[in-house]
Amino acid sequence: MSRKVAKASLESMYRIFTVPEAPGSTLGRINQEISRNLAGFLRAHIVAVEKDIDDMEADFSDTLIPEDPVFVSEQAQFLLDKLVAQSVHTASPSFIGHMTSALPYFMLPLSKIMIALNQNLVKTETSKAFTPLERQVLGMIHRLVYQQDDSFYTHHLHDPSVALGAMCSGGTIANLTALWVARNAAFPARGDFHGVQKSGLVRALREYDYDDAVILVSERGHYSLRKSADVLGLGSDAVIAIPTDDDNRIRLDALRETCLRLVNARTRILALVGIAGTTETGHVDPLEAMADIAAEFGIHFHVDGAWGGPTLFSGTYKHLLKGIERADSVTFDAHKQLYVPMGVGMVVFKDPTHLRHIEHHAQYIIRAGSRDLGSKTLEGSRPGMAMLVQSALKIIGRSGYEILIDQGIDKARLFAEKIKAHPDFELITEPELNILTYRWCPAPIQEALAHAPEPIVRQVNDRLSKITKEIQKTQRARGKSFVSRTRLTPARYDHHPCIVFRAVLANPLTTPEILDDILEEQAGIAREDFLNEYRHAIDHLLAAPAASHAGAR
Amino acid sequence: MSRKVAKASLESMYRIFTVPEAPGSTLGRINQEISRNLAGFLRAHIVAVEKDIDDMEADFSDTLIPEDPVFVSEQAQFLLDKLVAQSVHTASPSFIGHMTSALPYFMLPLSKIMIALNQNLVKTETSKAFTPLERQVLGMIHRLVYQQDDSFYTHHLHDPSVALGAMCSGGTIANLTALWVARNAAFPARGDFHGVQKSGLVRALREYDYDDAVILVSERGHYSLRKSADVLGLGSDAVIAIPTDDDNRIRLDALRETCLRLVNARTRILALVGIAGTTETGHVDPLEAMADIAAEFGIHFHVDGAWGGPTLFSGTYKHLLKGIERADSVTFDAHKQLYVPMGVGMVVFKDPTHLRHIEHHAQYIIRAGSRDLGSKTLEGSRPGMAMLVQSALKIIGRSGYEILIDQGIDKARLFAEKIKAHPDFELITEPELNILTYRWCPAPIQEALAHAPEPIVRQVNDRLSKITKEIQKTQRARGKSFVSRTRLTPARYDHHPCIVFRAVLANPLTTPEILDDILEEQAGIAREDFLNEYRHAIDHLLAAPAASHAGAR
Repeated sequence: MSRKVAKASLESMYRIFTVPEAPGSTLGRINQEISRNLAGFLRAHIVAVEKDIDDMEADFSDTLIPEDPVFVSEQAQFLLDKLVAQSVHTASPSFIGHMTSALPYFMLPLSKIMIALNQNLVKTETSKAFTPLERQVLGMIHRLVYQQDDSFYTHHLHDPSVALGAMCSGGTIANLTALWVARNAAFPARGDFHGVQKSGLVRALREYDYDDAVILVSERGHYSLRKSADVLGLGSDAVIAIPTDDDNRIRLDALRETCLRLVNARTRILALVGIAGTTETGHVDPLEAMADIAAEFGIHFHVDGAWGGPTLFSGTYKHLLKGIERADSVTFDAHKQLYVPMGVGMVVFKDPTHLRHIEHHAQYIIRAGSRDLGSKTLEGSRPGMAMLVQSALKIIGRSGYEILIDQGIDKARLFAEKIKAHPDFELITEPELNILTYRWCPAPIQEALAHAPEPIVRQVNDRLSKITKEIQKTQRARGKSFVSRTRLTPARYDHHPCIVFRAVLANPLTTPEILDDILEEQAGIAREDFLNEYRHAIDHLLAAPAASHAGAR
Repeated sequence: MSRKVAKASLESMYRIFTVPEAPGSTLGRINQEISRNLAGFLRAHIVAVEKDIDDMEADFSDTLIPEDPVFVSEQAQFLLDKLVAQSVHTASPSFIGHMTSALPYFMLPLSKIMIALNQNLVKTETSKAFTPLERQVLGMIHRLVYQQDDSFYTHHLHDPSVALGAMCSGGTIANLTALWVARNAAFPARGDFHGVQKSGLVRALREYDYDDAVILVSERGHYSLRKSADVLGLGSDAVIAIPTDDDNRIRLDALRETCLRLVNARTRILALVGIAGTTETGHVDPLEAMADIAAEFGIHFHVDGAWGGPTLFSGTYKHLLKGIERADSVTFDAHKQLYVPMGVGMVVFKDPTHLRHIEHHAQYIIRAGSRDLGSKTLEGSRPGMAMLVQSALKIIGRSGYEILIDQGIDKARLFAEKIKAHPDFELITEPELNILTYRWCPAPIQEALAHAPEPIVRQVNDRLSKITKEIQKTQRARGKSFVSRTRLTPARYDHHPCIVFRAVLANPLTTPEILDDILEEQAGIAREDFLNEYRHAIDHLLAAPAASHAGAR
């Protein structure tokens, strides 16, 4: 195809900064379509069937930056054909495998205002009113979690010497920030020692006479914690995974034992992390009891509420998070269940002086004593996403979020019932919040597994895992609906790894009929030819347990 | 004011996810205004005169999340009155103090598509074609910097086992990622030791028999480096600031000496950081010579090109960055001189296997061997900003960016001439790229300072600093134009600290007339009453040097 070639000139460069896209242009039309009917736009332009990955990569393979400008209309058409068409329909009500869901309509025009203003939150000189706005949003989430009184917020909200939290790009940076604070607070300056912040870990452990410093979390902890431990110089092995009970919650007896063992081994426990909604199964750790243990051993108690934090909006379900108000810090993701666009997260600290442990200053910005937010964040330049979070909190309101949270949990329970009632599936984890897992495992196989000897169970489970994985991949490729998958170690199968479907019921537009369709599509895929051999192998194994048992050894 | 109260219901919650804002609504009107005439919108709605900070904070002081939903129109009006009005006019051509400048018009509709798609780049399941797109953008910047041949990019661009770089929220995370890689690469696994990534810094130094690990950068290094050293467990004191010459460039003799001293002291130098465009003065370190020193001592060579990287687009000025192609890693900010909205940065690595040193996996996502970008980034969930970067690179093109870069540098030189020719100002640093610094210091005072004894010079400089600071604050508060300020230690004044104006000439819409106006406004402020006393004090000091000298002791 022969391309029209534009020539760059000073005039053409002025033009891109001063002349808006004409409403009739390709980009103008796309925009009107999105404004008028977002759902229709996504439906019309995202193709259902996946393109081959090699073909997709071929569309994005040129590494030479073009010498001459490409026309805006040409690029817009390119994006529509090659990118939008092959993007993921995260807003689709039949895509229940992601933590990224539909967005409220008002987010689109508000985001445009945010982009147009292009503020930089690192310092007041490039953010002005956005600075108190961001502090207000952090105050709102702080209050949701910690419920302090009016005078507390009057006193601290806009006091530049403290901070109720830090806003960031997402849960990973939020968790990292919390652990960074915990590490620095554990080894402060004293005597000739200038603190771990200035003098580093090696000197800190020597000064405080520890051999090691670790972080405790259940084995369901998010991988960002291991990554954080790596970044922080502790090493990812410093995250000690505590076993979980049958409901994926941290085992308090094991936690207590570990604490005792570590304290006796001259190991400093920097943080205990409780999970409010595990990524894989949505379970909530026993936060109240964990707070007790943290208090007993003098450990920073962090709660990763990236997923489950907004459960606090629900009068019905907030009791599940009881004890979160005793956490020293809490991670809260806005681009998950606050329904704000990707990527904005937060971490709030019970003690407004806690973030001082990571304070950094510079001459040209964030001078000591200034109101600049950048002195107490890991990131430097940051966009004004706080505007979207504040708008969501106000336009949806406490009672609106309650409805969204409640309908998600109720729908997950309904889906669990459907799975249990379906002859082809086995529910693996009951939903505590709005996440559940299940797998393909017809009733007769479930029945047989209950009585089969352990080696047979293992072999059958391996084959079931392959089937569940195949179904998940096939369903995704067909593009009509989507559930994700993960690997769990269910107690009922002696903690042998099993691949399971994972459903996240956060999209308010997902209906019970859609859930039925998803199950039927999966059952249909399983009935197709290519799975027959697995099925035969399973039947064979279960029919002759003794022989297979011997053979497996 | 009595507020209309909405009531949240399941239906009203569905509505916000399914019903677009009416074109005639408050938000609809704001949006059309922005699309039609962004500059006009910003001019009309951002008020010139700063509101008192206390009043501004009062508008954002409620920490209770409203129980009932606020109407979208009410929130839109609130944002217009309280937030937009009091935001910073970053796009204004007379605001030459920020690194945040105007945006090309096409960024607005493209951003809307990005928000509407709401992809999450952590894994292909939530980003699909955005994954190869992001890899392409990293490849484009890699090629701009390293100029490898076609076969290199054919081989590595989409190979999931390697990565040409990592995209992130901005320069701070980019620098941190580079130093994280450098630290982990310095202490890899060997024998029984599992590497610093798993086992942490204390064991790493013990295993490799070092007392210390440090990072070298000139005293003009960005504060994100000290922050990174803190995060990484090295401690911020591990950043050793090498003195600079009169042009704010690292002194190679001092650098070499420091390297020799450290090597003899069993200190591991993790990284040497060269600056391509210092934040304060825009100067570029002698990268070629630094690459030689890094090679000689076997040190990871990182270049912080957050500001100056795009100078590579200019045939005329790219020679200033000679040697950058020998860096192991380079930071590049897209929200600065690539004119993409806040916040997106990148770090590219010469060696495509280098990012393996920070690889992390999890079961449910970014499984080993997958194409998921999240295995080699510090952040987890990330937005699809790569789409905006690719569009900018294509729509502006190499030659378009060259024009933007050249006009900025040429304008800075013109401004420097204007300052030198103006009787009231003193140029402090000549522009190498498009940044310069100057201060209020009328010609007679400059003349007198050249001959005054050192204690007098110091006292006069302190007073001049106060005046420059006052002028800067007053000009900012008036809201017509804006330059920033910083504190430098010019060689001509025996490295005594001086507060200076800092001008960043990145907005293509800034005209020579605007530069004249800015100087005249500053000169006018200085002539006003409140500065007279300073002026008298200065004259007095300079008139009686001997007496003052004695008095100062």
